[in-house]
Amino acid sequence: MNKKGSRVERELVKMLWDADCAAMRAPASGGATKKPLPDIIAGNGKIYLAIEVKSSSADQIYIDSEKISGLIEFSKIFGAEPFLGAKFKNKKWRFVRIDDLSKTRGENFKVDVDLAFSKGLEFDELIGRDKQVKF
Amino acid sequence: MNKKGSRVERELVKMLWDADCAAMRAPASGGATKKPLPDIIAGNGKIYLAIEVKSSSADQIYIDSEKISGLIEFSKIFGAEPFLGAKFKNKKWRFVRIDDLSKTRGENFKVDVDLAFSKGLEFDELIGRDKQVKF
Repeated sequence: MNKKGSRVERELVKMLWDADCAAMRAPASGGATKKPLPDIIAGNGKIYLAIEVKSSSADQIYIDSEKISGLIEFSKIFGAEPFLGAKFKNKKWRFVRIDDLSKTRGENFKVDVDLAFSKGLEFDELIGRDKQVKF
Repeated sequence: MNKKGSRVERELVKMLWDADCAAMRAPASGGATKKPLPDIIAGNGKIYLAIEVKSSSADQIYIDSEKISGLIEFSKIFGAEPFLGAKFKNKKWRFVRIDDLSKTRGENFKVDVDLAFSKGLEFDELIGRDKQVKF
């Protein structure tokens, strides 16, 4: 875990709590077992989320296939919806379903700004909150 | 978090994974916010658990009222059943519902071996597994 990853994770955990979603980060050590853990687990009594968090100052985020298969495995056993939480610099968060990620030639995963903002969910959608109607 | 608390937590996390329950320990630092976190979150797609873990080499376990109110608050928001996971030395684990804990004169909580083994759930009951019929 690098410092920046840790900072955006803390930011997202705070956003979740502020939106009445209880959220917990994975322990830095990885915990007791070699089992795959998401960066964040969250729940609000209706929706359970397992989130892998990635940030970038570039236009593209790359994710190892191992991370994604671990996220899927954890989510399936726990009973949570898996998401990639993508934070591009100076942009709002977007939450991308695993099926919507692109594959690299090396069988890893990637998501660019365009994909994140066309297919990804906004924060309010992630937590099942209706979009506010603006007058 | 003392070393012993950490050891029994890791033991319980391993038991949960071995029983097809995905489990995660809280980060040692307490994470991003001042929000209350249980020692362990676990789920198996049907049951979601928030567990405060306490072990003792004596016959009695004491728990601060603050810990219990935090556990209740987290569980309510997240959507989990709160339990005290009690590990008495040389005894099997028992999982006690908050309503079944005793109160101390100082408005804190306690559970002794007798209470844990009369009212507490066995591990298999905790995770919704039927008791095995022995022939």
